[in-house]
Amino acid sequence: MVANNRQNGDFHPSYLYNPELLVGLDWKSVQHSLKPSITNEDPGEDYFLVRPLRIDDYDKGFLQLIVQLTTVGDITKAQFEAQFLKMQKAGCYFVTVIEDIRHSKIIGSATLVTELKFIHQCGNRARLEDVVVNNTYRGKQLGKLIVLTVTLLAKKLECYKMSLDCKDPLIPFYKSLGYMLEPGNANTMILRYESKL
Amino acid sequence: MVANNRQNGDFHPSYLYNPELLVGLDWKSVQHSLKPSITNEDPGEDYFLVRPLRIDDYDKGFLQLIVQLTTVGDITKAQFEAQFLKMQKAGCYFVTVIEDIRHSKIIGSATLVTELKFIHQCGNRARLEDVVVNNTYRGKQLGKLIVLTVTLLAKKLECYKMSLDCKDPLIPFYKSLGYMLEPGNANTMILRYESKL
Ligand SMILES: CC(C)(COP(=O)(O)OP(=O)(O)OC[C@H]1O[C@@H](n2cnc3c(N)ncnc32)[C@H](O)[C@@H]1OP(=O)(O)O)[C@@H](O)C(=O)NCCC(=O)NCCS
Ligand SMILES: CC(C)(COP(=O)(O)OP(=O)(O)OC[C@H]1O[C@@H](n2cnc3c(N)ncnc32)[C@H](O)[C@@H]1OP(=O)(O)O)[C@@H](O)C(=O)NCCC(=O)NCCS
Repeated sequence: MVANNRQNGDFHPSYLYNPELLVGLDWKSVQHSLKPSITNEDPGEDYFLVRPLRIDDYDKGFLQLIVQLTTVGDITKAQFEAQFLKMQKAGCYFVTVIEDIRHSKIIGSATLVTELKFIHQCGNRARLEDVVVNNTYRGKQLGKLIVLTVTLLAKKLECYKMSLDCKDPLIPFYKSLGYMLEPGNANTMILRYESKL
Repeated sequence: MVANNRQNGDFHPSYLYNPELLVGLDWKSVQHSLKPSITNEDPGEDYFLVRPLRIDDYDKGFLQLIVQLTTVGDITKAQFEAQFLKMQKAGCYFVTVIEDIRHSKIIGSATLVTELKFIHQCGNRARLEDVVVNNTYRGKQLGKLIVLTVTLLAKKLECYKMSLDCKDPLIPFYKSLGYMLEPGNANTMILRYESKL
């Protein structure tokens, strides 16, 4: 399977990627990480729904959620939809959310981005980006659930590795999910363009 | 300007992205990094040419170069071309090379990948990937030249930041080019799918 959001034929264009891709992920391989055991298809409570981002999630508080992560700024519905459609077309964005369907509200999100390579036999690399759970919902394993969901999705898409950048306090969280700091090879360096080069 | 390789109208489809994008980069902002001063448009020797990857670079030793970076594997010309076309279509891959035109040989490469975000006002993030200079050409500022070229290209494409993952010994190299280890926020964590989750 190649890393592309169009897998398995057509799907409702309201979804960023094909929801079928989230069916049958290899939860057995990460059994030990969640206690009690939950999965994207059985997230513990019947009012939680794990699914791809939808174009109408602007009205379900998606931006109010990700503002808990960093600066978002004023984004109109039209701007959100335009960005959504660009991502959908590109085929390498797998923004995955948890909705609390009682309130029609997005309460968690994590993004898998796949990257085409020439190295590793024209392989696919995966990245984890923009992980957030609404502050009133934290500590219920939803962070682990959403991260593992996209981690297993990257495996299904046959990526050879998945990486993330994180702040020091979150190292134990990601370690508990199988991510490692590789000795001598664990540095993220950044250049910000707001500041002078 | 939005981060997309189709900027400025049509360009020869043999190029991965529009070569015009490499014209007029803001070298003044990084003047202090290179001594003597060289730029992508004036790379010191008239037999060096800095340009986007081309679909015929398979025959100019592109894969023999990147094997100096990591495992590449056996890639046929058809596979190379298929991957090239996928990257070209996606519009977010800016593989940039240095050719030694005396020998029609690719002797340096660095990749800029842009990523669409909802955060930061639907901003674009940039990443530096797969930097390599042929071992017989090292120590002549070509590494710095190719990294700064794609760094300035990301600036031109209005990315809000550019990041990279690297091994410890290369930290001084990237520091000299303006990249920083942000205190408390400089960890790359990795999960490899060859090994068990
Ligand atoms: C990180 C985050 C997604 C975790 O969500 P969550 O639903 O609370 O996580 P879970 O309930 O699945 O797991 C919580 C575990 O991670 C640990 N953890 C979570 N956030 C932590 C933090 N900021 N510092 C230290 N530990 C943290 C908890 O102590 C807990 O550990 P335990 O299982 O050993 O008790 C959430 O705290 C969040 O959205 N934070 C703000 C955004 C952010 O920092 N994102 C990550 C950017 S790198
Ligand atoms: C890293 C690399 C691209 C540098 O290319 P280069 O053309 O030799 O670099 P330059 O001549 O522009 O600059 C060399 C500077 O970087 C330093 N440097 C380069 N590679 C280094 C290494 N592996 N360890 C320590 N320092 C290094 C040199 O000491 C020199 O510093 P100076 O200007 O203060 O004297 C080249 O060494 C390479 O291809 N390495 C193998 C692939 C690799 O490791 N890529 C990076 C993956 S994160």
